[in-house]
Amino acid sequence: MSSLPQNRSTSLLTDKYELTMLQAALRDGTAHRKCTFEVFSRRLPNERRYGVVAGTARVLRAVRDFVFTEEQLADLDFLDEETLAFLRDYRFTGQIDGYREGELYFPYSPILTVRGTFAECVILETVILSIMNADSAVASAAARMVTAADGRPIIEMGSRRTHEYAAVSASRAAYLAGFVATSNLEAAHRYGIPASGTSAHAWTLLHINEDGTPNEAAAFRAQVETLGVDTTLLVDTYDITRGVETAIEVAGPELGGVRIDSGDLGVLTQRVRRQLDELGAHNTKIVVSSDLDEFAIAGLRGDPVDGFGVGTSVVTGSGAPTAGLVYKLVEVDGHPVAKRSRGKAMTGGTKSALRAYRATGVAVEEIVHPFGTPAPDVGQLTATALTAPLMRDGRIVEGLPTLDESRDHLAAQLITLPWEGLALSRDEPAINTRFVGFADSNREPAH
Amino acid sequence: MSSLPQNRSTSLLTDKYELTMLQAALRDGTAHRKCTFEVFSRRLPNERRYGVVAGTARVLRAVRDFVFTEEQLADLDFLDEETLAFLRDYRFTGQIDGYREGELYFPYSPILTVRGTFAECVILETVILSIMNADSAVASAAARMVTAADGRPIIEMGSRRTHEYAAVSASRAAYLAGFVATSNLEAAHRYGIPASGTSAHAWTLLHINEDGTPNEAAAFRAQVETLGVDTTLLVDTYDITRGVETAIEVAGPELGGVRIDSGDLGVLTQRVRRQLDELGAHNTKIVVSSDLDEFAIAGLRGDPVDGFGVGTSVVTGSGAPTAGLVYKLVEVDGHPVAKRSRGKAMTGGTKSALRAYRATGVAVEEIVHPFGTPAPDVGQLTATALTAPLMRDGRIVEGLPTLDESRDHLAAQLITLPWEGLALSRDEPAINTRFVGFADSNREPAH
Repeated sequence: MSSLPQNRSTSLLTDKYELTMLQAALRDGTAHRKCTFEVFSRRLPNERRYGVVAGTARVLRAVRDFVFTEEQLADLDFLDEETLAFLRDYRFTGQIDGYREGELYFPYSPILTVRGTFAECVILETVILSIMNADSAVASAAARMVTAADGRPIIEMGSRRTHEYAAVSASRAAYLAGFVATSNLEAAHRYGIPASGTSAHAWTLLHINEDGTPNEAAAFRAQVETLGVDTTLLVDTYDITRGVETAIEVAGPELGGVRIDSGDLGVLTQRVRRQLDELGAHNTKIVVSSDLDEFAIAGLRGDPVDGFGVGTSVVTGSGAPTAGLVYKLVEVDGHPVAKRSRGKAMTGGTKSALRAYRATGVAVEEIVHPFGTPAPDVGQLTATALTAPLMRDGRIVEGLPTLDESRDHLAAQLITLPWEGLALSRDEPAINTRFVGFADSNREPAH
Repeated sequence: MSSLPQNRSTSLLTDKYELTMLQAALRDGTAHRKCTFEVFSRRLPNERRYGVVAGTARVLRAVRDFVFTEEQLADLDFLDEETLAFLRDYRFTGQIDGYREGELYFPYSPILTVRGTFAECVILETVILSIMNADSAVASAAARMVTAADGRPIIEMGSRRTHEYAAVSASRAAYLAGFVATSNLEAAHRYGIPASGTSAHAWTLLHINEDGTPNEAAAFRAQVETLGVDTTLLVDTYDITRGVETAIEVAGPELGGVRIDSGDLGVLTQRVRRQLDELGAHNTKIVVSSDLDEFAIAGLRGDPVDGFGVGTSVVTGSGAPTAGLVYKLVEVDGHPVAKRSRGKAMTGGTKSALRAYRATGVAVEEIVHPFGTPAPDVGQLTATALTAPLMRDGRIVEGLPTLDESRDHLAAQLITLPWEGLALSRDEPAINTRFVGFADSNREPAH
């Protein structure tokens, strides 16, 4: 039994059938077959052009922390003694390879490859998928927003719209995708992401006179006195024009910013910019929020917006709250295996992938080949290996990219896409994925 | 400082601006004003007819565990000493009233009412909303699925499609809404929800002969030997007709069930039912999964389906991954306050609510009146109070409903809705919410 505290163990973040399959496999002797499980997606949600790999670092920690405490074992009374004994000693001792965090992916990209015995790999299915599906959904949506914002900063402020711990990893995934800051203090604490925030309508509403009438100026004055003139004042609690007037009266033309959280943002920002300029507040920034998604952000491209606050849409994956990644057995004792179910066909065998680029740096295609075979020749193109070691004999490989390095990597990758690959509209994936060197009997995925 | 371990403290599940507002309020003396914050929703997502309150019990525990450890305080270096001192001693000492878990709600239902000083209430915003938005989104979607299933059991198996801890509370919310079991072992462990599971395609794929050819019979045999003939075999890995044939050959006609996880489930279940009957397996149940939502479940009403496994759609709220609940300041030192922003208007003042029913038990309307005033007269109708004490002076009220009691309550409430209120189609809320006894200057919400 491990000394890991109960609350850090990830072992019950698991579906029951994984443990009953384990028990059956221990009984019939198949538990120790050498297997490969692969994480991939059959399609991109909502006909997007690309996905963003996220959660890999969290997955590796979750695998490391996948141990069973006695208290947990006591609860698994549906298992026999042999299975409980196996779990008591359980540590993943296999190999994990995969795409780095912040890498782009496409349908059938072999994002993560887990090798070991059936027994040690099968029970990791749920926790691996939970993490990668949640984090990749957020990062994939967030990257589109960053592109739409066209260089203007976006702050993630959606914690309140999703599960309290999903919020923490959503902040991380949004930052990975290029958001500049988060409202979430736990994410700042755990991951070192810059934290940011202005004030809520409650702050303005709190400031009433003794007779109950509003006193917006008092709210603004207290905020400026405490947080400095560089702060951002929320000006739309009562009337925006009056709010802006009061803000500059109180703070002077050196006010850092104003935030607008309601209404027709295109029209309003134009009007507020004019008003601020007339008041001499030329450097006062305009920050907007209010149910923004990538389409609304793109729609404000021509308007005087200096920054965006994005909440609901980013933490819920903007219409695709899960990335649709699956964890499938693809090889058993050296034999490729594959499901034949209608609409769920796949290619068996352990895989590696590379991406081919033109000399101009534009990505051309993704090529998937059998793991351990030499990379296919790409002629005049340049190839970059996508599959890299992440865990060896159960230990996390040293020197893996930091969150900031992964963030930079994604930013660099996005500009390798053919220009139409960055469009927000629904269409085919930005590049194709080609399978090379797999047996003929091993059906190609339909795409 | 509290002795609560770092990992159980919920205090950093908070947006930064809550703490900077706190600091400004401590400075300007507004921190100690008596305030009421209210959780409500302006509309039901996707024009649904009702919402289901969920997460209340989790909220109360999170408020109880909202304390700052020294390690956390050390990280809050943007705050001044006075604010840090306040947080070091922080414990919520106020009052919380609200709807019970498993209660129905409609636009502007005052689901949760938090009373205390501005300082102690404002910093709870994010954690309260995160929990209630996540749990209510799942419960609201799940209740529609339970209705659509028309008495046939549904198992929640969506852990892999959402954040690893969101999965645990999603299991809880789905069970609250009437699902019969979950695949998630942590949810079973924490909340005592029945855990359930069959097997994955990986189990069948694992069973190959030495030459790599499939051996579905070996997989089925091992599962039946370990889990008993009562188990459910997954029959669609290769060919469903062959799979069913093999299943009955191996297990005999007393096999508990077969699961189909792909294809056109209406056609397939009809065919499989005939085949099972021909093989004498009249009691073998047919369980279906494969991206089911409430509409797909309703579409199978006439087909021989004995149970459903639902994953993605329930944990992601079936198109509405967040409930859209907000936490708004509605009263300061006895004065009602309300935001006037366009599209975000609300009614100020602390509120209570009751629901009025006809003698037949059918719900007629929800009536909201000022907190502490006598319940309005409902004439011939029967009224039930919806607002009940949940926390007093910072302590959770004793004797609150258990999860199973809340589950029973919801089941009983659903049958009080006018029959069209249970329809899956988009429309108005099933009943209206009426505001009685608020000042004229206090604008009625538009609905």
